[in-house]
Amino acid sequence: MNQEDLNLCLSVATMMADAARCVIRPWFRAPLAVVDKEDQSPVTLADRTAERVMRAILAERLPEHGIFGEEFGIQNEQSRYRWLLDPVDGTRAFVTGRPTFGTLIALLEDGVPVLGIIDQAVTQERWVGVAGRLTSLTSPLSGEAKTRACPALAQAELSCTSPEMLEMAPHDGWKALKKHTKRMTWGGDCYAYGLLAAGQIDIIAECDMNPWDWAALVPIIEGAGGRITAWDGSPLRADGDRTVLAVGDAALHAEAVATLQSGKAQAL
Amino acid sequence: MNQEDLNLCLSVATMMADAARCVIRPWFRAPLAVVDKEDQSPVTLADRTAERVMRAILAERLPEHGIFGEEFGIQNEQSRYRWLLDPVDGTRAFVTGRPTFGTLIALLEDGVPVLGIIDQAVTQERWVGVAGRLTSLTSPLSGEAKTRACPALAQAELSCTSPEMLEMAPHDGWKALKKHTKRMTWGGDCYAYGLLAAGQIDIIAECDMNPWDWAALVPIIEGAGGRITAWDGSPLRADGDRTVLAVGDAALHAEAVATLQSGKAQAL
Repeated sequence: MNQEDLNLCLSVATMMADAARCVIRPWFRAPLAVVDKEDQSPVTLADRTAERVMRAILAERLPEHGIFGEEFGIQNEQSRYRWLLDPVDGTRAFVTGRPTFGTLIALLEDGVPVLGIIDQAVTQERWVGVAGRLTSLTSPLSGEAKTRACPALAQAELSCTSPEMLEMAPHDGWKALKKHTKRMTWGGDCYAYGLLAAGQIDIIAECDMNPWDWAALVPIIEGAGGRITAWDGSPLRADGDRTVLAVGDAALHAEAVATLQSGKAQAL
Repeated sequence: MNQEDLNLCLSVATMMADAARCVIRPWFRAPLAVVDKEDQSPVTLADRTAERVMRAILAERLPEHGIFGEEFGIQNEQSRYRWLLDPVDGTRAFVTGRPTFGTLIALLEDGVPVLGIIDQAVTQERWVGVAGRLTSLTSPLSGEAKTRACPALAQAELSCTSPEMLEMAPHDGWKALKKHTKRMTWGGDCYAYGLLAAGQIDIIAECDMNPWDWAALVPIIEGAGGRITAWDGSPLRADGDRTVLAVGDAALHAEAVATLQSGKAQAL
C-alpha cells in the first residue's frame, strides 16, 4: 500500500476510533438495564453498537475492504485488505468499571498488520501505529510512545492479563520467565501493550490470543521501538500458536524467547 | 467524636488528599531519574513527598493526633485518634503507569476507623467515607457511591489484586469462593474497593493486608451499603489475621464467609 492510500486508511481509522469512543463511553459504569437476555449487558451493547458504527464508516469510505468483527462476522472475505475490529478488548475491566479496557482497530494487507489503533474511551488515550512510521500516543494523562531501554530480564517489569489465560500455555516456560524478571503485574489487556509502547512495562507474555487481540498491537509496538512475536520468536500469524510475546527493548527479545523455550524443553 | 470534631477532621483530611494528589501526580509515568540508590524510584519519591506533606498539614491543624505512615513511622502514639497514611497503595499499578493506584487516608478513634478517603490522583476520582454517613464519590469518569444488589454468589463479580497475595492464605477457602462466583478479575488494590463501593464489583477477598491498607476502606464501604470484615466474618482489627472480605450487598456476607470457611474446614 502506498503512503497516500495508507494516509486515507489512517483518516478512516481515526474516524472509526472517534465514533467508537462516543458510543462506548456512556455504557461505562452504567447500571445493568433490566433485560431478559443474558447477552444484553452494557459491555455487549457497547460492543455491538461500536462495531456497527465502525462498519458503517468502512462501508461508506472503503466499501471494497474486508472486515472481521466478533459480533457481525466477516465481509468481503476475498479482499487483500482486511480490518479487524474489537470494540471492547478487556471485558472484565469494562464490566468492573476499570478504565483499562480498549478499542482495537487493525488493518491487515495480505495478512500483515499495517495500521493499528488502541483507544481508551474513558481516559481518552489513543495509540496509533502505522507500518514504517513512529507510533503516536495522545493522552491527557502522561507519556509518549517510546519504549524504554531494558537490556536484561532481571530489570524487567513483566505483565500478563490473568493467570487463567496461562492455563492454556506451556506453563514451565512462563514460570521461568516470571522467575527471571524483576516484578509481575496482573491485568491490562490491550492497555498493557499501550503501556509497554509508552515505556512503562518491559515484557508482556500472553497466550490464548486471537488475531483481533494482537493485530493492532504490531505496528504500535514496532513503531515505538519494541518487538512483538510469538513465544518462539516467529512472526505472529492468524494460524499460529496463539501466544504473544512483546518486549519494549528489542535487545531483550532473544533472552525472553530463550527463557520461554527453555521451560518448554524441560517440559518435554 | 462529636459531629463538629468529625467535620473538622474531614476538612483536614480533604486538604491532605488535595495536597497528596498535587505531589503524586507529576511522578506518574515519569521516566526513572538517573540515581544511585535503588529506593529513589518515582513511586518512592511520590510516596515520601506525599507523606511528608500530609504530616505537615496534620502537625499544623491537629498537632495532638497520632500519625502512622510507612515511610516516617509513628508519632503521638498515645493519642486515641490515629491517622493511617498510605500515599501510594498499589505500587505495581503506579510503576507500570496504570491509573488504578490510590492514596489512602484513614482516621481511627480508639482503633475504630471513623473516616476514610481513597483518592486517585490521575483520574481525579475520590471516595470519602465518614462513620454514620453516606459515602460520597466525586469522579469525572462516572458512578456514584452506592453498592449494588447481588444476593447470590453465583451472580457475583469477584476481584483480587494478585494471585501472589493468596499464597499467604488458606487456599482452599479462596478456591471455593472463586469457583462459586460468576467471574474473576485481577488487579486493583484500593481502587477495586472503590469500584465495589460504586456498585461495579460484588466481592473482594484478599489477605496479607495491613491496617493502613484497609482502615480507610471501612467507612467508605459501610457508608455505600456494603460490609467489610475478616474472612471469618469478625471485625477487622490491627492484630487480626490480615484477611479482608468486602461485599457490596450485605446479604451476600454470610454465604461468602461460609464458603471461605468451608474451604478452611476441608483443609484441616
